[in-house]
Amino acid sequence: MAVLGATGSVGQRFVARLADHPWFELRVVTASDRSAGRPYREAVNWLQTEPLPAVAADLVVGETSPDGAPDCPLVFSALDSSVAGTAEQAFARAGRLVVSNSRNHRMDPDVPLLVPEVNPDHLALAELQDRGGGAILTNPNCSTIGLVLALKPLVDAFGVEEVHVVTLQALSGAGVPGVPGVQVVDNVIPFIPGEEEKMETETGKILGRLRGSAIEPSAVRVSAACNRVPVIDGHQECVSVRLQRPATVDELKEAWRGFRGEPQRLGLPTAPRPAIHYLDDEAAPQPRLHRDLGQGMAAVVGRARPCPILDYKFVTLSHNTLRGAAGGAILVAELAVERGLPERLPLG
Amino acid sequence: MAVLGATGSVGQRFVARLADHPWFELRVVTASDRSAGRPYREAVNWLQTEPLPAVAADLVVGETSPDGAPDCPLVFSALDSSVAGTAEQAFARAGRLVVSNSRNHRMDPDVPLLVPEVNPDHLALAELQDRGGGAILTNPNCSTIGLVLALKPLVDAFGVEEVHVVTLQALSGAGVPGVPGVQVVDNVIPFIPGEEEKMETETGKILGRLRGSAIEPSAVRVSAACNRVPVIDGHQECVSVRLQRPATVDELKEAWRGFRGEPQRLGLPTAPRPAIHYLDDEAAPQPRLHRDLGQGMAAVVGRARPCPILDYKFVTLSHNTLRGAAGGAILVAELAVERGLPERLPLG
Amino acid sequence: MAVLGATGSVGQRFVARLADHPWFELRVVTASDRSAGRPYREAVNWLQTEPLPAVAADLVVGETSPDGAPDCPLVFSALDSSVAGTAEQAFARAGRLVVSNSRNHRMDPDVPLLVPEVNPDHLALAELQDRGGGAILTNPNCSTIGLVLALKPLVDAFGVEEVHVVTLQALSGAGVPGVPGVQVVDNVIPFIPGEEEKMETETGKILGRLRGSAIEPSAVRVSAACNRVPVIDGHQECVSVRLQRPATVDELKEAWRGFRGEPQRLGLPTAPRPAIHYLDDEAAPQPRLHRDLGQGMAAVVGRARPCPILDYKFVTLSHNTLRGAAGGAILVAELAVERGLPERLPLG
Amino acid sequence: MAVLGATGSVGQRFVARLADHPWFELRVVTASDRSAGRPYREAVNWLQTEPLPAVAADLVVGETSPDGAPDCPLVFSALDSSVAGTAEQAFARAGRLVVSNSRNHRMDPDVPLLVPEVNPDHLALAELQDRGGGAILTNPNCSTIGLVLALKPLVDAFGVEEVHVVTLQALSGAGVPGVPGVQVVDNVIPFIPGEEEKMETETGKILGRLRGSAIEPSAVRVSAACNRVPVIDGHQECVSVRLQRPATVDELKEAWRGFRGEPQRLGLPTAPRPAIHYLDDEAAPQPRLHRDLGQGMAAVVGRARPCPILDYKFVTLSHNTLRGAAGGAILVAELAVERGLPERLPLG
Repeated sequence: MAVLGATGSVGQRFVARLADHPWFELRVVTASDRSAGRPYREAVNWLQTEPLPAVAADLVVGETSPDGAPDCPLVFSALDSSVAGTAEQAFARAGRLVVSNSRNHRMDPDVPLLVPEVNPDHLALAELQDRGGGAILTNPNCSTIGLVLALKPLVDAFGVEEVHVVTLQALSGAGVPGVPGVQVVDNVIPFIPGEEEKMETETGKILGRLRGSAIEPSAVRVSAACNRVPVIDGHQECVSVRLQRPATVDELKEAWRGFRGEPQRLGLPTAPRPAIHYLDDEAAPQPRLHRDLGQGMAAVVGRARPCPILDYKFVTLSHNTLRGAAGGAILVAELAVERGLPERLPLG
Repeated sequence: MAVLGATGSVGQRFVARLADHPWFELRVVTASDRSAGRPYREAVNWLQTEPLPAVAADLVVGETSPDGAPDCPLVFSALDSSVAGTAEQAFARAGRLVVSNSRNHRMDPDVPLLVPEVNPDHLALAELQDRGGGAILTNPNCSTIGLVLALKPLVDAFGVEEVHVVTLQALSGAGVPGVPGVQVVDNVIPFIPGEEEKMETETGKILGRLRGSAIEPSAVRVSAACNRVPVIDGHQECVSVRLQRPATVDELKEAWRGFRGEPQRLGLPTAPRPAIHYLDDEAAPQPRLHRDLGQGMAAVVGRARPCPILDYKFVTLSHNTLRGAAGGAILVAELAVERGLPERLPLG
Repeated sequence: MAVLGATGSVGQRFVARLADHPWFELRVVTASDRSAGRPYREAVNWLQTEPLPAVAADLVVGETSPDGAPDCPLVFSALDSSVAGTAEQAFARAGRLVVSNSRNHRMDPDVPLLVPEVNPDHLALAELQDRGGGAILTNPNCSTIGLVLALKPLVDAFGVEEVHVVTLQALSGAGVPGVPGVQVVDNVIPFIPGEEEKMETETGKILGRLRGSAIEPSAVRVSAACNRVPVIDGHQECVSVRLQRPATVDELKEAWRGFRGEPQRLGLPTAPRPAIHYLDDEAAPQPRLHRDLGQGMAAVVGRARPCPILDYKFVTLSHNTLRGAAGGAILVAELAVERGLPERLPLG
Repeated sequence: MAVLGATGSVGQRFVARLADHPWFELRVVTASDRSAGRPYREAVNWLQTEPLPAVAADLVVGETSPDGAPDCPLVFSALDSSVAGTAEQAFARAGRLVVSNSRNHRMDPDVPLLVPEVNPDHLALAELQDRGGGAILTNPNCSTIGLVLALKPLVDAFGVEEVHVVTLQALSGAGVPGVPGVQVVDNVIPFIPGEEEKMETETGKILGRLRGSAIEPSAVRVSAACNRVPVIDGHQECVSVRLQRPATVDELKEAWRGFRGEPQRLGLPTAPRPAIHYLDDEAAPQPRLHRDLGQGMAAVVGRARPCPILDYKFVTLSHNTLRGAAGGAILVAELAVERGLPERLPLG
């Protein structure tokens, strides 16, 4: 198995989490030409709090091309969006199963945008791809994942018509260098380029229905306002929803607390148990206290209360670089493997 | 003129801004019994970035009672809400004009809740008070002020039916000690006790109509979600509004940019000019960059854009301890003085 | 085994780390009278990032007295210094082995101030205590521990005459509430009450020699300047040392890298391996990246280079609430148990 | 008068402070070729808290060459060090008086490194420059300025032999982008490239003596350890000094409090009065509270106390982008103008 773009911040998270994965063996790391040929430990400016895994340290960084990753039917892409589009397509053409965290192919009609607890059935769309034998699976934007995880039990139980979300997003979501330090201390930045549009469109696709060879987007209306706050990890979101059917606050809490998704049913290695934590403390969730629940893979919900305009308000939190990036993509791959997708390659 | 509760953080702001006020002369500072009798410079733990004003340094701290503030027809109250209710009432009974930043009397039916640019006509309510000759005027909660300032031009031009607001509020709003430092670094707290209720009810009163001897609240529906963020000063708010009459984004911007309130027309000393700044930069406003516009007395608006659920979204920022506390109360007093209210005491 | 003062921030860390300790079984938690009689999960405002351990959740909080902790020969004290002095003495009188994180008894002539890697032989002092059968062992101040850990290999190899240390200390060291949030954002506070004196005197005692029934303090001269910085956990220290014997930078690095202390030799459960990490990166150590090395029990050293005034400069980092508080005290207890001290109670 | 490199963060500070300078008229702003030809308000990403001055807004950005700044005998350089060396030399050759904040020429033997309160007599060195008629004056590194300001009264009164300094430096000192935001929250970085060397060598030159046509460096020994902390503006420094002659703490405080430098005697427009504030509060100075004293031009000193290794310890603070950059350079220019240097051009 390979990690493309392994030296960047998302790439490092892939390496950290794949180092001792029970199913996947990290064999290849790729990066830009500048780094190719050097041992990973020298090519990377390792910024994770866990030490660089021994299994990765001595891997020689390869070029980001199918030839650079032989014997890797499964590849994770942490490529920058400036190069991910073409590179991922090349890997798919070479018969590989690409699980990507980049935004380039997310809205392609034949590419599933997967949150395994939310729309596992969309995986079937991958089998209809005509990309030369391989396939591309994608992970949503980090701010979308926490939202749809929190919405899913409500969609199932009551239906959701409208979603108003204001985010307080962590700095790590912008990568490195991201936002300059001098702009984040004693400050909040009320704009993240492209983020509101991504949340508004990706949510519709994820909550949509697979009809024949296409996803019919959900009719849910989403309004997003995105802010960057001085938090390292953890995207917090203030959500108001209009439901299709009446519900009480207690029924909402039951829906969250009783939720089990497909990854939990299948016992996938990276699946958090539970997928959603509902906290009763009136001042919860908080990024620093709760982002690591479920090894950073869970959504954490709190403060459910009536909304004078829509029906209910609540707060949701998820770890943007674990659940929202590398961890989420790994869970997608686990779902695909459990469902036997790699064995059915080449497709088409 | 006197400042009640002059040693606290809001009280210090009053002292700082009244030290060289062209109309008002700071003669009396009061505090709890523990501090009474000591020179102000010794009794206070001065935490402002400007030096302690010379005019205040040697004032002997008095007790918080009308007798402790003789010859002060005008008193500003920065008292803690645990004592403000009774103390302010006592001053009013003694014939004084009390301008209060505390929450105790804000929702009293005979007490105007004033933002001079928004509802200057509510001042007339004070003349109907039957509190023994004096009167109480109040300033809204710091998060409400920025909101109603930004709403006012829209209310006037298009009507506003619904307001959905999510706040990112500064630490200074909680006073000292307020939130412990260990809870604010790398964190966001999604709950401020009582704050959402205050925003939802105060907005209706301020935007209401004076009918006879009472305020008829506005029918506007307000939904507030309040967060504490690691920012020193400046409450930022993500607002969505539903209008009564159609408008374009450009018309909204014109409404904000063309707005002049009564304080601007009267040329009150503390009135910011303009009252509202609309910024075109897509990443504005930001607390650290823009909270001091108009000497911290202006509202700063930006990012007006359509809202897929209500009609429009925008961001507003105002300085919570200047406009939102001491400065706002001083502007209320200036309006009252300009309108001759002190000369008409005793009332009733 | 009992934890005294279990609801405070250090107490919570004790509970978190003792919940699954291989040797010690958490049976009793005590707190102030206000909390006594309630289940721990209700009495505590749990602020740790790990969930409240199940083993502690339902323990009924007891009073802080020997009767409140029957069958607990070993007690950990996280008591506030306002009550620790008397309470710990009472437990010692009742024949218990008290391992304390409080400062009250640290400088008592008959109480060892222990960092197990540095002065394990001082443990013998406990056997000479005449406190009614039990004994008190103490853990140094959180800023002292990281310093003496980093100094120990230099003391052993080259001798250390002078130590100049400037600290950049984390907020968690001040407990909750500690420093108000409004004072820590965009700021540094160059004063921590009593801290410089503690570092200067405790270092001499820890590096001193056990002679008969007393510790002869080391002749090392220490100058400390202590600062509070907006960091959650991890005390970073800029150290300059004058050595007794000449050494090269490489020899210093070898001394740190080759160091093994008694806890490492004994394989104590909480002992970090290695005890000291020397990092070559010129921008290391950093609190957020490196405080958790060795499960927060290691000292992390970097940037060794010549000092134009003393001989060498370097930077050291240690986790103030893990190594510097609960974890350090647990390691002290492990050393005492391994050496058979509890079996030799009652003493004297 | 011209500002070279006017769009960068230091350049913006020059523009902000020169806009209403009583002596200097801002006529020309230059930047890289990319920006040349555009109005300043469009070319700049204005990040100051004060609004962009009207006088600068419509200036057309020129190329950074003497021809691009005709009729400007005085030029301020905020150029990046990658281009400052050559460009400043070209301006000097063209007969201009260059006052530079860049490091390139600071250690040139014929270039004075000026802090007007400390070494105003070094200005005479400029007249000996043989650079084609003009001259280059430089401003020290932002961390050096605060140090030498605080040292100067001690040097004059008692002599200073050794200086041990540990800095806690603000983010703005690194410019934009500088340190990534994700690395500064909940963190401290114990390394600033080149900074320690600059402090150690610049201090010797500034405190040196002008002998004939050269500066004889002071014999003072300086050891610097530099840290970046999450503070926006204000470099705080923990200093220990060894004096040549004995002194008491009170004598030190008197030396600081009684200090008047040449800019204060001459009444230069940008000179702070006093140049040095000594604060008695045991927790002072603090960057957020005290960096703006003297309009950000003063040094703020506190916590003088004995040092067990050297003689005394204290803390000093100065505003790194005001005193430490643009403001300091403007004060240098004021001194040069007051002394008639521009009239004596061309030199040589």
